Amino acid sequence: MNAVEAYLKTNTELPCDLTFVIEGEEEVGSKHLEQFLQENRKELACRAVVISDTGMPSLKHPALTYALRGIIAFEIILRGPSRDLHSGIFGGTVDNPAMALCQMLAQLRDKNGRVNIPGFYGDVAKLSAYERQQAARIPMTEAQYRKFTGASKLFGERGYTFVEQRSARPTVEINGLTSGYQGEGSKTIVPSWARAKLTFRLVPDQDPERIRKLVLTRLKQLCPPTVKMEVQAGHGGEPYMVSPTSPLAQAALRTLKAAFGHEPILMREGGSIPIVTQFQKVLGADSLLLGLALPDDNAHSPNEKFNLDCFEKGARMGALLWPELAKLG
Amino acid sequence: MNAVEAYLKTNTELPCDLTFVIEGEEEVGSKHLEQFLQENRKELACRAVVISDTGMPSLKHPALTYALRGIIAFEIILRGPSRDLHSGIFGGTVDNPAMALCQMLAQLRDKNGRVNIPGFYGDVAKLSAYERQQAARIPMTEAQYRKFTGASKLFGERGYTFVEQRSARPTVEINGLTSGYQGEGSKTIVPSWARAKLTFRLVPDQDPERIRKLVLTRLKQLCPPTVKMEVQAGHGGEPYMVSPTSPLAQAALRTLKAAFGHEPILMREGGSIPIVTQFQKVLGADSLLLGLALPDDNAHSPNEKFNLDCFEKGARMGALLWPELAKLG
Repeated sequence: MNAVEAYLKTNTELPCDLTFVIEGEEEVGSKHLEQFLQENRKELACRAVVISDTGMPSLKHPALTYALRGIIAFEIILRGPSRDLHSGIFGGTVDNPAMALCQMLAQLRDKNGRVNIPGFYGDVAKLSAYERQQAARIPMTEAQYRKFTGASKLFGERGYTFVEQRSARPTVEINGLTSGYQGEGSKTIVPSWARAKLTFRLVPDQDPERIRKLVLTRLKQLCPPTVKMEVQAGHGGEPYMVSPTSPLAQAALRTLKAAFGHEPILMREGGSIPIVTQFQKVLGADSLLLGLALPDDNAHSPNEKFNLDCFEKGARMGALLWPELAKLG
Repeated sequence: MNAVEAYLKTNTELPCDLTFVIEGEEEVGSKHLEQFLQENRKELACRAVVISDTGMPSLKHPALTYALRGIIAFEIILRGPSRDLHSGIFGGTVDNPAMALCQMLAQLRDKNGRVNIPGFYGDVAKLSAYERQQAARIPMTEAQYRKFTGASKLFGERGYTFVEQRSARPTVEINGLTSGYQGEGSKTIVPSWARAKLTFRLVPDQDPERIRKLVLTRLKQLCPPTVKMEVQAGHGGEPYMVSPTSPLAQAALRTLKAAFGHEPILMREGGSIPIVTQFQKVLGADSLLLGLALPDDNAHSPNEKFNLDCFEKGARMGALLWPELAKLG
């Protein structure tokens, strides 16, 4: 609001109409937003949506986030014997669901860090030279990043930088594994079942529904006849992209440069912001993700902060953005 | 005791000396038995040990258990990032310890159900034709066994019957898997660590200490440089065998036939009875495992029972065994 108030105090007319959509469900799945957009689509019709929910590497690196990854989640349970069996008395005669699960999951990612599912990369949009150039401008070294994650060595899809891997390439991740005995010491059992939680991060132009089918087909192929598999596929979130060379993106870049006094950065984010695809689907409007969070803001963590410089320059960004957008017509 | 009392009531002298070792720690690891044996080895010196802690398939199938499997347990932890990471923001740049663990464990068992560790089978004593013939006499069909375990399809080392697989062949089992998020629904993380509990069942003449080294070497080979591995090897239990053609075993078989009126069965058990190797090591005496438990006795379970016929024929077995053993000198 600050940006608009500041603008109005200049006694200039707003160069375009502004509609604010304020919702309080963002952290709990935005369940009612799509219905609200549907019901008010005429009133909400617009040229572009502006959302400030992303970050920038530093005050010297204002950023436009032009793409987000999508997601699809799965839960797999393999069932073997009807109960945990004594591994001395029965071990060696029945399949071990935990072993069967490991052998299935192991085949979902190859040695080059690629998802090993036929057709998985079929719809992945190639990174342009311009995008790779932009990604290379992000001010973080591999050593800094390694230190930040605490991983002794990075690992990702061969042929891509860690910046590209985390935002512009799809992944498979095991989010959780559960089977058998989990307490202290050992318990000599063949567990009755084993479970894995999996997520796939998707990138433009992958379709969660199509990926869902490919994954299910692959899991069925991999599942041995000695266990029974149950799979639940969670709701998918679509990846998102505004072309970085589009007039909309270029208008945002000009604004960022003017507001911050530094050459802006074009970024992709690895996570998802589901409402962005809702705006696109219901209103037909692309979103400009012009976030002002700094890496050390501790978002969602203790001692969360928001930098006052970001606040001031963010207000300036808002004021400068409206005329830029108005020019697009 | 009953057998001895019955024997003494015949007014015949005992044909050999009997020493009873009664211990109350069998279910909690028999921690003090070895020390007791060491301290009293002179007094306990004997030709053979008789233990009734095993089972027989039915009253028509009295059994001598001539071999037991050994065991060695491992706990493996793989550590990746210093904390659980958001799989959107970081996924694709750091190895996933759960995936790394699956890929390691998957390689420990091959498609033929064999343990895939170089040298693992080096000391495995070959099953003789006589032993395989005896194993084939055990009165249980594969269909009955499948029903009993609740497994839809059996799976074991190719080339062996399920009776041989469960008792005469070594195995690798995953007893437990733990990593990441285990609750309801999904949580989009790259887990910081993943843990597996493993046991290997060993058969004569495998040496737990030698197997421990082979397993550790293999795990180190398999562990990728992108995670850090911690392995704990638990105490090993040695496999055990009395040659089924030895005079001792043959004496036991004659006794069983006379006591039960049926041709006895020679069995191996898949579990371990650690005190048997203690008797062998400290006293230099082989054990005859002449157990009287029936498959439906519900050992260690609610409604545990002991059949009175087994009791009576077991007493007879005792009385007939002493003269047979005395003959061995």
